[in-house]
Amino acid sequence: MKIIRTPHSITVWSERLRREGVTIGLVPTMGALHDGHRSLIHAARLQCDALVVSIFVNPTQFSQTEDLSTYPRPITRDRALCREEGVDVCFEPTAPAMYPDGFQTTVTVPAIARRWEGTARPHHFAGVATVVTKLFGIVRPHLALFGQKDYQQAALVRRLVHDLSLGVAIQVRPTVRERDGLAMSSRNVYLSADERRVAPLLSQALQAGKQMIVGGILDAATIEQRMRQTVEQAPDMHVEYLAVCDPDSLEPLPVVVTRAVLLGAVRIGSIRLIDNLLVNRQAGKSRTTR
Amino acid sequence: MKIIRTPHSITVWSERLRREGVTIGLVPTMGALHDGHRSLIHAARLQCDALVVSIFVNPTQFSQTEDLSTYPRPITRDRALCREEGVDVCFEPTAPAMYPDGFQTTVTVPAIARRWEGTARPHHFAGVATVVTKLFGIVRPHLALFGQKDYQQAALVRRLVHDLSLGVAIQVRPTVRERDGLAMSSRNVYLSADERRVAPLLSQALQAGKQMIVGGILDAATIEQRMRQTVEQAPDMHVEYLAVCDPDSLEPLPVVVTRAVLLGAVRIGSIRLIDNLLVNRQAGKSRTTR
Repeated sequence: MKIIRTPHSITVWSERLRREGVTIGLVPTMGALHDGHRSLIHAARLQCDALVVSIFVNPTQFSQTEDLSTYPRPITRDRALCREEGVDVCFEPTAPAMYPDGFQTTVTVPAIARRWEGTARPHHFAGVATVVTKLFGIVRPHLALFGQKDYQQAALVRRLVHDLSLGVAIQVRPTVRERDGLAMSSRNVYLSADERRVAPLLSQALQAGKQMIVGGILDAATIEQRMRQTVEQAPDMHVEYLAVCDPDSLEPLPVVVTRAVLLGAVRIGSIRLIDNLLVNRQAGKSRTTR
Repeated sequence: MKIIRTPHSITVWSERLRREGVTIGLVPTMGALHDGHRSLIHAARLQCDALVVSIFVNPTQFSQTEDLSTYPRPITRDRALCREEGVDVCFEPTAPAMYPDGFQTTVTVPAIARRWEGTARPHHFAGVATVVTKLFGIVRPHLALFGQKDYQQAALVRRLVHDLSLGVAIQVRPTVRERDGLAMSSRNVYLSADERRVAPLLSQALQAGKQMIVGGILDAATIEQRMRQTVEQAPDMHVEYLAVCDPDSLEPLPVVVTRAVLLGAVRIGSIRLIDNLLVNRQAGKSRTTR
């Protein structure tokens, strides 16, 4: 496995392979790789001739009050996981290489970024949209894979790739969960034992919401109230949002007709957790799509 | 010469050629081609194996009060010029193909877009930056050529290509002028005979400014005053700005040290004219760079 730190080098590598007809896959990450990333890398490996994992803790998607400086960076372990999974190139740019002096261009996807995580983290999605556009410019992948765990991010990436005709196929893979349902996240390591015990209530709340829809309860306010009650069984869990939304626009749905995404964000102490579930009533029985 | 209207078709064409090692050039235009465009196309033809001219009157770079609906669209003449100059593909997308329902992604280059044309036309450069990014996504050129006439636009495109690592070489070619110095522009056809007679005062003002710098007068306020006096010889010419600026950042310079760009915009009746001159004191004698 090659470790490449210079954007220019990986572009040269990629352009050479593209001319040879080789298909290139990219899994963009901030490192601290867990089994969710592993499943993305594994799926990419099966579909692409050459596979790049980027590891870049992107400063522009953190706010000043967030955990940029303490974000976990277990680079040796990350590289080992990439090697195990047959990654060809680990792309590890530095922040000054990505954002040299005078950098100012910003990509925004305003309607998708407005609500939910965008409210809690006002500049987050501009940072994400810009760095993803730049990573695609540098790596020139045919296919890029994202986890459904960051549902709004995945929707935003799909939208910007389509809008700017970037010509990268976007694949969104199911969230990988711990046995008790907690969605895997690099930030789960921050949870204390007590917090970890109640953390699965978020996914349980979303499951409860899904079961209601399956059972024919389609009024969003009723569903949202039940989800909230589930989370608030633990007094130190604070709901930021629990919402029934259109899966494409992410706008709130008053009533579920066919497809919906249940989006949730909670705080436990200083830790934020997010999760989501897709529900599709069209298929006779409800099932997770995408 | 092929005429292609579908973005997807030109991407397929371009990707096939790229795999064969063919270099692709792009001259993005809004049509109404004049000798300024012709010089860009000619220069591109000499440097690229395959040459695309895009003709798209981009609605998002016009404000509501501007001339979108009346902008000249002499498509038959434009295609003839392209054929004469050996263009391979005329890319003529429709607005709905470029901006389908739900389109929302926006590219901004805030520091470069803030002043000058950005003040007069607040959303103009977001429209330009977004459509150029998208055209590059669709056409995948190795090289794209722009006229120096739209100096701020060219600076913005250079910046965004660098910032987003789009991997397109940007070439900015000298402004082509009428015999009396008026910079060629698709909007010059709007000038009445009287307006056309005084229009060259803008380029004369910039020349006067350049001569002062060559002669050692380096104080921006003095230079700007002289340029303004030159333009205001014609009572119906109204100065929007005449400024001595840093050629990269476009920030105003109090004093010329080595390089400068003189930027000007004037109104005659309802017509706006812009023009610019580069000055370089480093080369012993002043000369135009780039």
